[in-house]
Amino acid sequence: MIRSETSFPVRYYETDQMGIVHHSNYIRYFECARTVLLVDCGCPIETCEKEDGVTFPIVSLECRFRYPAKMGDVVTAVATVETLPTARLQIGQAVYNQDGVLCAEGKVVLGFLDKRTGRPVRCPERILRCFEEHING
Amino acid sequence: MIRSETSFPVRYYETDQMGIVHHSNYIRYFECARTVLLVDCGCPIETCEKEDGVTFPIVSLECRFRYPAKMGDVVTAVATVETLPTARLQIGQAVYNQDGVLCAEGKVVLGFLDKRTGRPVRCPERILRCFEEHING
Amino acid sequence: MIRSETSFPVRYYETDQMGIVHHSNYIRYFECARTVLLVDCGCPIETCEKEDGVTFPIVSLECRFRYPAKMGDVVTAVATVETLPTARLQIGQAVYNQDGVLCAEGKVVLGFLDKRTGRPVRCPERILRCFEEHING
Amino acid sequence: MIRSETSFPVRYYETDQMGIVHHSNYIRYFECARTVLLVDCGCPIETCEKEDGVTFPIVSLECRFRYPAKMGDVVTAVATVETLPTARLQIGQAVYNQDGVLCAEGKVVLGFLDKRTGRPVRCPERILRCFEEHING
Repeated sequence: MIRSETSFPVRYYETDQMGIVHHSNYIRYFECARTVLLVDCGCPIETCEKEDGVTFPIVSLECRFRYPAKMGDVVTAVATVETLPTARLQIGQAVYNQDGVLCAEGKVVLGFLDKRTGRPVRCPERILRCFEEHING
Repeated sequence: MIRSETSFPVRYYETDQMGIVHHSNYIRYFECARTVLLVDCGCPIETCEKEDGVTFPIVSLECRFRYPAKMGDVVTAVATVETLPTARLQIGQAVYNQDGVLCAEGKVVLGFLDKRTGRPVRCPERILRCFEEHING
Repeated sequence: MIRSETSFPVRYYETDQMGIVHHSNYIRYFECARTVLLVDCGCPIETCEKEDGVTFPIVSLECRFRYPAKMGDVVTAVATVETLPTARLQIGQAVYNQDGVLCAEGKVVLGFLDKRTGRPVRCPERILRCFEEHING
Repeated sequence: MIRSETSFPVRYYETDQMGIVHHSNYIRYFECARTVLLVDCGCPIETCEKEDGVTFPIVSLECRFRYPAKMGDVVTAVATVETLPTARLQIGQAVYNQDGVLCAEGKVVLGFLDKRTGRPVRCPERILRCFEEHING
């Protein structure tokens, strides 16, 4: 399994008039963790876009909201990968607050798109090897 | 069934460097449609918060992304309710572009929270009646 | 003078825990009005990017916040142009609520960037003509 | 002078289809730095809201955009205070990239609002003392 995480304080503009982090921001926190996971695997997203000519459109997501994050919290966003990417990459996601309380958890499925043709492709060889090297690490 | 929709142009800041609407914004478009649905049912969210003393925290969501919306598009966000709220309110969601192409579809489950106590409650009587009046209309 | 406007309801996620629209969103409302102004002048931003090969990076902005917009409000964002673009395009901006109360006002200066070279350029001839045709209309 | 800063990677959703960080996000980065400054002064915003019963509505802002931040960048947002708050608090703001290049700079003026009455007030005594203690430190 590959597991990456990143921690950051809740930002004021992410709260809404319920006084808690707006739910759409957990979806964005998920992405922050995926970005770190790609960096940890040696294939940062901007490199994949520029060098491999591939983007990662999102295919589907699901999220369960467990406990509200609030202003003053420092949250940790987690991304995990258990199986190697094929035409799809499935990523487990979670957000915890500073007390280790699970705020949100979910699953995101990414595809791969050839930037030139705009067509779906299988995970490029170089990126696949990055994942292979790290999945049993 | 209650069905509400609202149409609006894609906003530039909603695009990302893939050149399409960032996926998190469909989650926000979903909310725009829910807001209209609540107004259409005669219980706008700000009234529910102020008069019924209840907020609608999101319990879970799922979304499948079908076709990218782009700058220049005018999208239509749809919310549908098929069953009356109890302790939960389940809402079907979709986003179409101006050609009627389905861009995203999903499901959102809301709960009800007493603003004073911060505790989950069943759907308040007044709001339930609003839904009853409209669900067979 | 060219004057364009667009009206839309405040979105829930745009509010913050002060219970009002977060200030950064007026900056985004400003952009919504500029987008409409470009359409009204016959040069929508996505056409300028694709056909003229030019983007409009923002050079500077100023904003005074006068009165908070709130959930339930329908705001009108306004953009005005008084002088033809050269290497810069200066745009007056304002946001009003449904009662005509001024919520925010400001000024935005845009530049022009050649997409291929990434270098600043003067306003392309075609876009300039679009503005000329409309500025005295 | 009080000077606070905070560093964080650019988030993917903050980029737009120009391939750079959307200008509205620098305004949000500014706020991140102000949040840290308030913490550094011993009066975190959520404490001010809860204990002092005061919120900090923004009165005005100006920003000059100098150099685009991009995906992959780690930016540093800075907030500085040179004079003690009265009915207003003026804050200098800047965002740098990881190479020390100035991306954006500006000025933000905040007011103070009594949460109960919704009326503008002078900076509460406790908060003023926090600033006094740190401004010559």
